[in-house]
Amino acid sequence: MSSNSFGLLFRVTTWGESHGPAIGCVVDGVPPRIPLAEADIQPALDRRRPGTSRFVTQRRESDTVRILSGVFEGQTTGTPIALVIENEDARSRDYGPIKDTYRPGHADFTYDAKYGIRDYRGGGRASARETAMRVAAGAVAQKILGDGVTVRGAVIQVGGHAVDRKRWDWAETTQNPFFSPDAAIVPVWEDALYAARKAGTSLGAIIQVEADGVPAGLGAPVYGKVDADLAAAMVGINAVKGVEIGAGFAAATLSGDENGDEIRMAGGQPRFLTNNAGGVLGGITTGQPVVARFVVKPTSSIRTPRRTITRDGAETEVSTEGRHDPCVGIRAVPVGEAMMACVLADLLLRHRAQCG
Amino acid sequence: MSSNSFGLLFRVTTWGESHGPAIGCVVDGVPPRIPLAEADIQPALDRRRPGTSRFVTQRRESDTVRILSGVFEGQTTGTPIALVIENEDARSRDYGPIKDTYRPGHADFTYDAKYGIRDYRGGGRASARETAMRVAAGAVAQKILGDGVTVRGAVIQVGGHAVDRKRWDWAETTQNPFFSPDAAIVPVWEDALYAARKAGTSLGAIIQVEADGVPAGLGAPVYGKVDADLAAAMVGINAVKGVEIGAGFAAATLSGDENGDEIRMAGGQPRFLTNNAGGVLGGITTGQPVVARFVVKPTSSIRTPRRTITRDGAETEVSTEGRHDPCVGIRAVPVGEAMMACVLADLLLRHRAQCG
Amino acid sequence: MSSNSFGLLFRVTTWGESHGPAIGCVVDGVPPRIPLAEADIQPALDRRRPGTSRFVTQRRESDTVRILSGVFEGQTTGTPIALVIENEDARSRDYGPIKDTYRPGHADFTYDAKYGIRDYRGGGRASARETAMRVAAGAVAQKILGDGVTVRGAVIQVGGHAVDRKRWDWAETTQNPFFSPDAAIVPVWEDALYAARKAGTSLGAIIQVEADGVPAGLGAPVYGKVDADLAAAMVGINAVKGVEIGAGFAAATLSGDENGDEIRMAGGQPRFLTNNAGGVLGGITTGQPVVARFVVKPTSSIRTPRRTITRDGAETEVSTEGRHDPCVGIRAVPVGEAMMACVLADLLLRHRAQCG
Amino acid sequence: MSSNSFGLLFRVTTWGESHGPAIGCVVDGVPPRIPLAEADIQPALDRRRPGTSRFVTQRRESDTVRILSGVFEGQTTGTPIALVIENEDARSRDYGPIKDTYRPGHADFTYDAKYGIRDYRGGGRASARETAMRVAAGAVAQKILGDGVTVRGAVIQVGGHAVDRKRWDWAETTQNPFFSPDAAIVPVWEDALYAARKAGTSLGAIIQVEADGVPAGLGAPVYGKVDADLAAAMVGINAVKGVEIGAGFAAATLSGDENGDEIRMAGGQPRFLTNNAGGVLGGITTGQPVVARFVVKPTSSIRTPRRTITRDGAETEVSTEGRHDPCVGIRAVPVGEAMMACVLADLLLRHRAQCG
Repeated sequence: MSSNSFGLLFRVTTWGESHGPAIGCVVDGVPPRIPLAEADIQPALDRRRPGTSRFVTQRRESDTVRILSGVFEGQTTGTPIALVIENEDARSRDYGPIKDTYRPGHADFTYDAKYGIRDYRGGGRASARETAMRVAAGAVAQKILGDGVTVRGAVIQVGGHAVDRKRWDWAETTQNPFFSPDAAIVPVWEDALYAARKAGTSLGAIIQVEADGVPAGLGAPVYGKVDADLAAAMVGINAVKGVEIGAGFAAATLSGDENGDEIRMAGGQPRFLTNNAGGVLGGITTGQPVVARFVVKPTSSIRTPRRTITRDGAETEVSTEGRHDPCVGIRAVPVGEAMMACVLADLLLRHRAQCG
Repeated sequence: MSSNSFGLLFRVTTWGESHGPAIGCVVDGVPPRIPLAEADIQPALDRRRPGTSRFVTQRRESDTVRILSGVFEGQTTGTPIALVIENEDARSRDYGPIKDTYRPGHADFTYDAKYGIRDYRGGGRASARETAMRVAAGAVAQKILGDGVTVRGAVIQVGGHAVDRKRWDWAETTQNPFFSPDAAIVPVWEDALYAARKAGTSLGAIIQVEADGVPAGLGAPVYGKVDADLAAAMVGINAVKGVEIGAGFAAATLSGDENGDEIRMAGGQPRFLTNNAGGVLGGITTGQPVVARFVVKPTSSIRTPRRTITRDGAETEVSTEGRHDPCVGIRAVPVGEAMMACVLADLLLRHRAQCG
Repeated sequence: MSSNSFGLLFRVTTWGESHGPAIGCVVDGVPPRIPLAEADIQPALDRRRPGTSRFVTQRRESDTVRILSGVFEGQTTGTPIALVIENEDARSRDYGPIKDTYRPGHADFTYDAKYGIRDYRGGGRASARETAMRVAAGAVAQKILGDGVTVRGAVIQVGGHAVDRKRWDWAETTQNPFFSPDAAIVPVWEDALYAARKAGTSLGAIIQVEADGVPAGLGAPVYGKVDADLAAAMVGINAVKGVEIGAGFAAATLSGDENGDEIRMAGGQPRFLTNNAGGVLGGITTGQPVVARFVVKPTSSIRTPRRTITRDGAETEVSTEGRHDPCVGIRAVPVGEAMMACVLADLLLRHRAQCG
Repeated sequence: MSSNSFGLLFRVTTWGESHGPAIGCVVDGVPPRIPLAEADIQPALDRRRPGTSRFVTQRRESDTVRILSGVFEGQTTGTPIALVIENEDARSRDYGPIKDTYRPGHADFTYDAKYGIRDYRGGGRASARETAMRVAAGAVAQKILGDGVTVRGAVIQVGGHAVDRKRWDWAETTQNPFFSPDAAIVPVWEDALYAARKAGTSLGAIIQVEADGVPAGLGAPVYGKVDADLAAAMVGINAVKGVEIGAGFAAATLSGDENGDEIRMAGGQPRFLTNNAGGVLGGITTGQPVVARFVVKPTSSIRTPRRTITRDGAETEVSTEGRHDPCVGIRAVPVGEAMMACVLADLLLRHRAQCG
């Protein structure tokens, strides 16, 4: 599979660099006759957009998406949908400090090791800017899933501070700039982020994404497991270094009788009494909510000077000034939701293919 | 991608059910003129084999592998390598209890939801028996990687009991039936497993797999990230519900200056002072050890009666007698190693394709 | 895609060499609950089997197929179906003459150029024996297509002797050893083949394969065209060097008004007045018969001495004794039918995925 | 594989409709550090461009290509290359006649049968305009192949009039508007095209494409054959209904001793005395020129009234006025060359992956 494509039947191919003229994607395999317009995509992009609070990068991008193909008279035609966003605020600043110096935690060193060349302006292809196209594609995926499937995400931990799950309220996630489901943790996170920024550093975060209304039977055994597709999707997001489904790592400390979700009947339908499986057993959905959690490492672009080397192998130090997210995990929420939607849309089509 | 295949260029397709006549795989894309014989594969299978200690299932399988194609006069020919293992101890017992009853934590319910039919004998396709072919394929992958790349794994936690990393000794992993790198934890795990079995239940585990000697530059940005391939590979193993690379979930509580691995020069080569990245930055290997960790949920087949339903929707209870691993995570070590080797072999070929 | 796999959703992976212990395939993506047994596959294999007339190789193979997985209690389970055929008559003869000498028209030279190693026994992987597994997979594909779709093939030319289309009778194809739809041409072909064999040479052939009952709407524009999938499928058969759909090469000499198939209504359904399109317009099926034709070059294994070189670059001559088909095209009929069925089964699943 | 992508490692994804705002493609998998600019691509587009002679459509498009990503400071970076061409002359005319009426020979009927919706303006996605992006991608592919590989094409037949191969002169192909290698046939074709246009009809054509300098060893046996990839590539071009490699269909009438290319040594290298194999044996290149031929059916858009039906199933007639190529095969030459280059670039990368 090509390195810049995602999905088998619902298939997204993205392109573009942080400081190039534009970024874009091609969404292929979309069923025909689905109503689709820019207005269906823009709101998702607006949620991810930079510059929306003090806690995210101040880069000014309207992130205005255009549909260039695949839609006719307001409906999808079944042909590839090309989406494009112009880069507006690609500052023509001095890239000297990072042109030849590898920033710790960044892809600078590895791109050079692999390709022997890299577009160093704003991180080039490695920039989180690429995730805008995931969000755009996710909005298309959501249209395929339909209203019956609800995908939503929340930040559940910033630095060492986790939400209190007893206070979980999805409605809260739209009321604060952190997508927090726990209103009480918000001032704690604010203080922590101010302190981190003041100290010239940054914080990591954990995000939870969940899909309700997913029918039982999606996915496939062995190498087409829903868990595996979700894992690849989430870990493929910039700066993500871990993922778990359902109980996840906590399952290590559960006993078998605690972990296996028991089943009863309710209203003529199977009802699981718990959801440690995160909605997936044997790689196939159970009909319960599909629940994934992923960790985003602290932003690597920080003001604190770090020891590093240059392209020529000279030892030096580097510190990164400029408009960076003190916690890049926050803006990962719409991205995680989008990847969940993309995975599910692909699974839906694949299931329909084999099982009708 | 087909649901029973793994990898793009180094490509493994497995088949077979727990109680069918045989299991097997086709390994395609192997470079030519690599010395290969059954004796290169059998030792890896023997490490995974059931019946080797009191803490794993007592099913008796010699797991004798045969090469049916793709090797000529002791060397690979570049054509597909077919491997097969006969099932020997597929007991013809009474499957009544599980034929029509969904075992909690198992794929019984979801297979039926998807396919409307399932081979219930020993778990059919969902059985961990399939992982034998991953191990066999991993042995072929290791031949491609060559002696310069060392892949090894260890159990680092059973139930609530984690190893003490200060006592980590890789040599220990071959001296106890738990693949533990910490000799001191072994009796603790023994006691815990005895207790779990006596209580009619089971325990989860965490496994670490690591690859040394991987050159910098493997992998690709965006959707071909090493992290994403590893995540899919590990989470695709039976009963695995989470994966992390490098610092993983712990990165949430690290600050940016703690997390980013600083770089110095040593002997004319870049040397990272830490490895929170787990050997992967921007989806591309750094040349440091590639480190992944995954969690295996506690065995779902337990003696404790659990509430469940039948195929017809009647509420009932089920308990699973028989020869099951009290901690299926233990035998997952060679499987995790194999998946790491398969991922790296594929990455190596893909890198060579694009970057020569 | 792996070089030994075919199809996207209905996916066949074959393995095995002419003189290895066995040949086999894995058929993945088959919908569940389709009745399937060896008896559904064996008749197709028997049609292709060597040794059935004086005009095909006298190698003695019963070609007895076994299903090793993916079928339970007589029905497909949705998991991969492994099929295997033991090689029985792999004569342990003296391979000296071809071990180090490249036979003109064979893959000997190119396998060595690519891999630097080849299993020279009976042609190894390049042997037409591999096509047995295509036929087996095609029988599974036909079960997916169901009784509504009829796939059938015929030899329409041997050497310079073409059938008379006015005498076309499908029923005739089962009455002569040449799959000829024209009874009158049979003695002509017999004479030509005797003459060719006597002269130590061989003849080429053209085969037509056609599918009736294919619904309109299968396939996809641009790179997923039915024509393109069929072309790859047919040209991928051993010794095939050309393919055409519908009017094919004859379309060069038609004018636009002769070529475009006009449409009327009949019984409330669209009815095309001709079928120059071969049932495919814009890459998508029209509902008319899908018609493909392919050419099979004359058997390269002939008694006439040919100039060639050895592995070491010495000039020499080679002639091939033994049990070879004087016209390998004849046995290509069931293979072409199988590839048509495989392509259509894959298209059917892909169409259902996108268009429901 | 997605229906709008082509190639495995060198992978092209195209998008866009005839009368949308733009058409474009994403070229993924390109090796890094290859010099590339718009000026490397534009000349190939100019050869295919409409409006260049009286014998091609008079639609006015400058076909100015822009590179939006994947190139930095004049070199490829290894990341995806996005190419885009604005549609300039998408006339806002009255589409009434074709909006609801199926033109014989066109994809109108089948798009509706599949998708239930179609962008009827200028043929939408089915327009030959899509081939501009193939040509653009082919120019990138040619850069990967390097100067050692020469790909060139020629029209060898228009209607019933074939070139005389004894007069074949590649230099001629740039001297006439028909890409004819035979100067003497040019006036014959001119007359035939005038006559066809005057009669309100169109003519078919046969194109030959050939690649010199291709190393031996590219390709792979069974389902990754060079012949099969080329066949899919060529037949996937709009209006192409047949393809042949080397001797192609003529091989049916050759005897085995005539067909198999004999081998001698010349200057220490193998030299084939003929090239009936078209440079491919057993699916792998021989080092001889790779030769493919394909047929393009006569343009379906003609003035002559044809019987057809409407979307509602009413019988009617349709004739197509406007600026259409009287022989669409002529402009297929650069497209065929591009597909040859794309196939070879992909094969080159795949070969390097497996065989180093």
